[in-house]
Amino acid sequence: MQDRNVLLTIKYDGTDFCGWQRQPGTKTVCGTLEEVLTRLLGFEVRLDSTSRTDSGVHAYGQRATLRGQFGIPADRIPRAANDMLARDRYECVGEIEIVAAEDKPEGFHARFDAKGKRYIYKISNAPQVDIFRRNYCYQITRPLDVEKMRQAAEIIVGEHDFAAFMSMGSTPQDSTVRNVWSIDIAKDGTDINIAVSGDGFLYNMVRIITGTLVEVGLGRRSADDVRLAIETQDRTKAGHVAPPHGLYLDEVFY
Amino acid sequence: MQDRNVLLTIKYDGTDFCGWQRQPGTKTVCGTLEEVLTRLLGFEVRLDSTSRTDSGVHAYGQRATLRGQFGIPADRIPRAANDMLARDRYECVGEIEIVAAEDKPEGFHARFDAKGKRYIYKISNAPQVDIFRRNYCYQITRPLDVEKMRQAAEIIVGEHDFAAFMSMGSTPQDSTVRNVWSIDIAKDGTDINIAVSGDGFLYNMVRIITGTLVEVGLGRRSADDVRLAIETQDRTKAGHVAPPHGLYLDEVFY
Repeated sequence: MQDRNVLLTIKYDGTDFCGWQRQPGTKTVCGTLEEVLTRLLGFEVRLDSTSRTDSGVHAYGQRATLRGQFGIPADRIPRAANDMLARDRYECVGEIEIVAAEDKPEGFHARFDAKGKRYIYKISNAPQVDIFRRNYCYQITRPLDVEKMRQAAEIIVGEHDFAAFMSMGSTPQDSTVRNVWSIDIAKDGTDINIAVSGDGFLYNMVRIITGTLVEVGLGRRSADDVRLAIETQDRTKAGHVAPPHGLYLDEVFY
Repeated sequence: MQDRNVLLTIKYDGTDFCGWQRQPGTKTVCGTLEEVLTRLLGFEVRLDSTSRTDSGVHAYGQRATLRGQFGIPADRIPRAANDMLARDRYECVGEIEIVAAEDKPEGFHARFDAKGKRYIYKISNAPQVDIFRRNYCYQITRPLDVEKMRQAAEIIVGEHDFAAFMSMGSTPQDSTVRNVWSIDIAKDGTDINIAVSGDGFLYNMVRIITGTLVEVGLGRRSADDVRLAIETQDRTKAGHVAPPHGLYLDEVFY
């Protein structure tokens, strides 16, 4: 029997997890999923994911592959695993939900075959904070100028060296050039959602793009500053790292 | 100098608390607030609240009194305490928020002077669960018949012996007669909010009323069953205890 290679689409609320990546003795999304899938499938499951999201970061469409020999049809995995992931007897709702599962050819890899990704960063710009949303969006009570944010976003879109938009201390990259395909800023009442799509992202890149756009929206930074950050590749010229709890890995493109 | 008696109005997300009531070595809403107010005011603060909400239960308008000798004007307490309650440097948003504070006469008591309370129980009746709302509403994916729920609610409203709507193992009550003033069931898209007002509530009473109405809405119980539960005062004739995370202490009436 040949190994199967099943691609999972995974939604999770990252609030109570120490990120995606498995760490012994720590509650992580990957570790929790591997434990449940190991119980379900009867062998030691190891997942390969597209992205190692940080602590507090959420996902609507994380992707990970599951390799091994097992009989259960791919489309039965979500329901069976979600029942095991559910918190309690009241409702079948957990912190993680497998949204879909499909068989892929042997050589397929969740990360290496990804052509790009879309993240959504959620901001609430209401004049009052809402404690019930504190884990799910970045709450900025001073008014943001969305038009200015859109103008600055135009400067960021395209292929650039994004060294200024990467957190220090991250693992060295061969190249800090990335192609940001689009940044769409949607306003719905007092909610502002920033959708950032591109071929790849440096460590904390979406959160630094967001922090920079927020500072532009508050009038603390100009479009020219953003241009300078890209040109000089100087981290200190870009904005702060927006908090993890506003960030959602939305979709992976293959 | 005479002791002041300040009434606080408190909002909280009960998700990560072991309920309201102070318990050594445990994270509770009351314990957390007392610690912050003790630091703020410089003396050992003890709070008297209206209601001892359970683990996972939320509040928009819990009330508690704070007695002692201190100079800070009541209306400055919320901002100062909320800054200390805020999670981090990013945003001034915590799990607890003091919404208001006002001086009251010496004899005023948050619980004994309360004429009644309103709770809101939040249900999501969408066909799919939403993991991001799992701590904030009761998610029922099978369709609920709201009209039938409203008819059954009419039977519950009024002064009755609610012994059937009280959890076993609760502290003995002098009387299990309570007056439910109103039950309003509002439907907004797939959200169903049940507002229950009354002069007082037995242990788990709102959650058992909700569980009973949910079973009526699912067709598992009839309006006659509800009438029988009230008449016989038999706990087994009423519905299940709806989960804590859908319940919000909304307002206390003085």
